[in-house]
Amino acid sequence: MFDLNAYLTAKNRQINEALGGLLGNTSGRIISAMRHSLMAGGKRIRPVLCIAASEAVGAGASDALPAACAIEMIHTYSLIHDDLPAMDDDAMRRGKPTCHVAFDEATAILAGDALLTMAFEVLSSVETEGQIAERLAVVGILARAAGYQGMIEGQMRDIAAEGTSLDLKALREMHALKTGALIEASVTSGATLGRGNADQIRHLRIYSQNIGLAFQVTDDILNVEGDPELMGKAVGTDSVREKSTYPTVMGMEQSKIFAKEIISRALQSLDIFDSRSDPLRAIANYVIERRR
Amino acid sequence: MFDLNAYLTAKNRQINEALGGLLGNTSGRIISAMRHSLMAGGKRIRPVLCIAASEAVGAGASDALPAACAIEMIHTYSLIHDDLPAMDDDAMRRGKPTCHVAFDEATAILAGDALLTMAFEVLSSVETEGQIAERLAVVGILARAAGYQGMIEGQMRDIAAEGTSLDLKALREMHALKTGALIEASVTSGATLGRGNADQIRHLRIYSQNIGLAFQVTDDILNVEGDPELMGKAVGTDSVREKSTYPTVMGMEQSKIFAKEIISRALQSLDIFDSRSDPLRAIANYVIERRR
Repeated sequence: MFDLNAYLTAKNRQINEALGGLLGNTSGRIISAMRHSLMAGGKRIRPVLCIAASEAVGAGASDALPAACAIEMIHTYSLIHDDLPAMDDDAMRRGKPTCHVAFDEATAILAGDALLTMAFEVLSSVETEGQIAERLAVVGILARAAGYQGMIEGQMRDIAAEGTSLDLKALREMHALKTGALIEASVTSGATLGRGNADQIRHLRIYSQNIGLAFQVTDDILNVEGDPELMGKAVGTDSVREKSTYPTVMGMEQSKIFAKEIISRALQSLDIFDSRSDPLRAIANYVIERRR
Repeated sequence: MFDLNAYLTAKNRQINEALGGLLGNTSGRIISAMRHSLMAGGKRIRPVLCIAASEAVGAGASDALPAACAIEMIHTYSLIHDDLPAMDDDAMRRGKPTCHVAFDEATAILAGDALLTMAFEVLSSVETEGQIAERLAVVGILARAAGYQGMIEGQMRDIAAEGTSLDLKALREMHALKTGALIEASVTSGATLGRGNADQIRHLRIYSQNIGLAFQVTDDILNVEGDPELMGKAVGTDSVREKSTYPTVMGMEQSKIFAKEIISRALQSLDIFDSRSDPLRAIANYVIERRR
C-alpha cells in the first residue's frame, strides 16, 4: 500500500529546501516579501505533481526539481497578484496576511513580478549538459501555461464574470485556463524533464486535465463546506461575491459525483504506467478527499 | 558616413513587424491592453542595441530578433507596472494614456504580467536547432537582469528614495539596477545569440554599462530641459517629486560633461571591433544628443 502522507512529507521537504536554497539568506524588502509568500506553507501540489510525473516516466525527482521550484514560484506570483486590492482584495492567504497587507501594494506587485522572473532564471541554470533542450522546452511549456492564452486569460475571465452568472461550459473554460493550464504544465514539464515519450506525455496530459478540473470542483465545494481553520483562509467568500461555482451551477451533490467521475478518468489514463505512477494515483484520490 | 536614422528606421520596422506578428490579430481585453502598451511607438533602443551587438560580433539581425522582441516586452511590462497608481501613478506614456488609464488597474497588472511571461515564451520558440544552448543562456541573462537582483531591486530603491536625498553612489547604484541591468542584458544577449567570444562580450559589457549610465543621465537632463511634445510625456516631474537626479546631485553643467565622458568610454571599448560595430558607435552618440 502506497503511503501518500509519507510521500508528500518527503517531497514537501525536498521542495521547501530547494526553494529556500534558491532564495538564499539575504535580507532586504523585496526578498523578504518573496519569502513571505513563497515559504508560507502551501500544499505544493503542483511541484509534487511535476516530480511525480518525472518519476512515472522512470526518471528521478532531482531531474524535475528545477521545474518544480519554477512552477511553485509562478503559482505563488499568481496568488500575490490575484490577492491585490485591484483584483480579489484578499487579506489572508495560507493562514498569513497576504503580501500587500504584510508589506505594501507596490512591494507586492514587484514581489510577484520577481517570483515570475525568478522561475525562468531557475530553469536556465543547468548543471547537467544533457538537459539543455528539455529545459528550454519547459520554459516554453510554463510560459504558455502562465501567459495570456492560459492562466492570465483565466484570471481576466474570472474578473469579468464577477456579478454575472456563468453556464457550465464558460465555468469549465475559465477554470481550465485559470488553474488547469498550470497544473497540466506541471505534469507535462515533469514528464519532459524526465524524458518521457510522446505516448506517455499524452496520457499524462489527460491525467493532468482531469486532476485540474477535479481540483477546482473540490475547491468550490470546500469554499462552502470547508473548515476555515484547516484551510488557513475564509470560507463562504464565493457566495458573498456571488461567483459562479460548480455547486451553484450543478448543485452540491452533483458536484461531488462529478469530481469522483473525473478522478476515475484521471486514474484510467494512468493504466499504461507501472507502479512508479503510484504517487500520481494517490494524488488523484487525495484531490477529492482533501479537507484543505 | 554611417546613417543612424536610416538604420534606426529599418531596425524599428523590423522589430515592430516582429512584435506585431507575435501578438497576432486576435482581439480580447488582455491582448488589446498588451498591444496598447507594446505598440505605442517607443524608441526601441534596447532591441536595437541587442541587434546591433549581434551584428558587431559578425552575426545577422535575425539571430538576435527573438531576444530583441523579448527585451522590448520586458521593458514594456516594467513601464506598465511602474506607471500603476501604487507606484509612480503616471497617466501618460509614449504620448498615450498609460495602460491602467486606458483599461483598468487589474488589466494593467495582468497585461504587464503577460508581456513578461511572453518574453520567455518567445525565447523558447526555437526554429533553428543550433541555437538551443544560446537561447537558454539568454533566458538566464534576461531573467537575472529583470529580476530581484536587477531591475526590480532598482525599482524598489527608486520607490524607497522618494522624498529622500541620494548621494552620487546610491544614485548610480539605483540606476545601474533599474535601467542599466536590462540595457547591459540587451547587448550581451545579442552578442550571445550572435556567438560572440568571451573577449568581445567583455568589451560589449563595458560599452553597455556606460551607455546605460549615459542614457539615465540624459533622461534626467531631459526631464528638466526636454520638450514635452517631442517626448510624449510631461517634464519637470522629477522636480515635483523631489527625486534625486544627476542634475540635482552633480549640477546641470557637470551632468552634461559627465554624460560626454562616459560616452567616450563606451566608444573606447569598441576599439577591438571593425566597422560592423558602427551602429553601436552611432547609438552611443545618439544617447547624449537625443531630444526625446
